[in-house]
Amino acid sequence: MITHNNTKVIAEPGKQELFIIREFKAPREKVFKAFTDPEMLVKFYAPFGNTMHFNHHDYRTGGSYSWNNKNADGQILCTFAGTIHELTAPERVIQTSEFMELPERGHAVMEAMLFEEMENGGTKLTIHDVCFSVADRDAMINSGMEKGLIDIFNQLDELLN
Amino acid sequence: MITHNNTKVIAEPGKQELFIIREFKAPREKVFKAFTDPEMLVKFYAPFGNTMHFNHHDYRTGGSYSWNNKNADGQILCTFAGTIHELTAPERVIQTSEFMELPERGHAVMEAMLFEEMENGGTKLTIHDVCFSVADRDAMINSGMEKGLIDIFNQLDELLN
Repeated sequence: MITHNNTKVIAEPGKQELFIIREFKAPREKVFKAFTDPEMLVKFYAPFGNTMHFNHHDYRTGGSYSWNNKNADGQILCTFAGTIHELTAPERVIQTSEFMELPERGHAVMEAMLFEEMENGGTKLTIHDVCFSVADRDAMINSGMEKGLIDIFNQLDELLN
Repeated sequence: MITHNNTKVIAEPGKQELFIIREFKAPREKVFKAFTDPEMLVKFYAPFGNTMHFNHHDYRTGGSYSWNNKNADGQILCTFAGTIHELTAPERVIQTSEFMELPERGHAVMEAMLFEEMENGGTKLTIHDVCFSVADRDAMINSGMEKGLIDIFNQLDELLN
C-alpha cells in the first residue's frame, strides 16, 4: 500500500486487481458528477498540463466512451475507450477501459468506482480495477498511472473548491 | 480442472478468474456467428428445455444486451445484462455480464471469448471470466453454471451439424 498526496493505491503482489482510494472535500453528488459528466471531466482529467478530448461519450448504463489526452503541441499521448456497464448516480459506476496505444488489443480492464458519503460531508472514492492477468495489472502500475492520478485528483480538488 | 462432456472448466482455488474451453466441429466463422447473432443465440443458449428471449441486443463494439431464460410456463429463470467492450469477427468478443436476479447489483463479470481455428477445421472456444472477487467467482461456479453450459454447447453441436 502506498499513500502519496492523499491518494492510496493498494496492489497486493500476484493479484489481478488493484484499489485506488481518495477522499474529496465535497458532497457526493458533486464528486460523482465530476467523474461522469464529460464537460466536467475535460476540466481536470489530464495530468501534467495536458488536455483531455472526447471522441465520443454516452455516460449511461449500456453506453460507451472514447477519449484521449493531448500535449500542448496537440499530439495524442494516450487514448482510452470502453463501455459503461452500470451508472447509478450518485453511488456507483462500473465500466470497462482499454489503453488503445498498446501494440495489441484485448487488455481490457473492468473498473468499479464507488462514491461514499463521509461523516464530515466529504466523499470517499474507491476505484477497484480487475484485469485479465497479473501481468496486465502490473503493467498498469508500472505505466506511471499513480503519478497521473495524483495530479488529476489534485486538479479536481481545485475545481471542487 | 474438470472435463465433462468435452467442456473443460479451469478454476484455480483463490483466484478471481475462470476458464471454460470447448471445441466445436465447425469453422470459426460459423461458431463466432452462433455466439454473437441474437437469431442464432435464441436457438441454443437456454439449457434444460428452457427458452432464451432478448430484451434488447446491439452486438457491436460499444453495444449492450439484455436477455433472459424462461421455462415452459413463461416464468423468468434468470436475466443477464451487459455491454460489448469489443467485437472483432471472427476472433474475439470482450463483454461484461451481470446476473440480474442477485439481491444486490455490482457483481459484474468481464468475459473474453476467443475463437481459434484448429488444424482439423474445427474451432476452439476459450471463455475467460474475471470477477471483482474470489467470492463472486466461486458463486458463479456453485450456481450450476457448468451443467447449463454443457447442455448449451451440446445443443450448439446439433445446430452446427
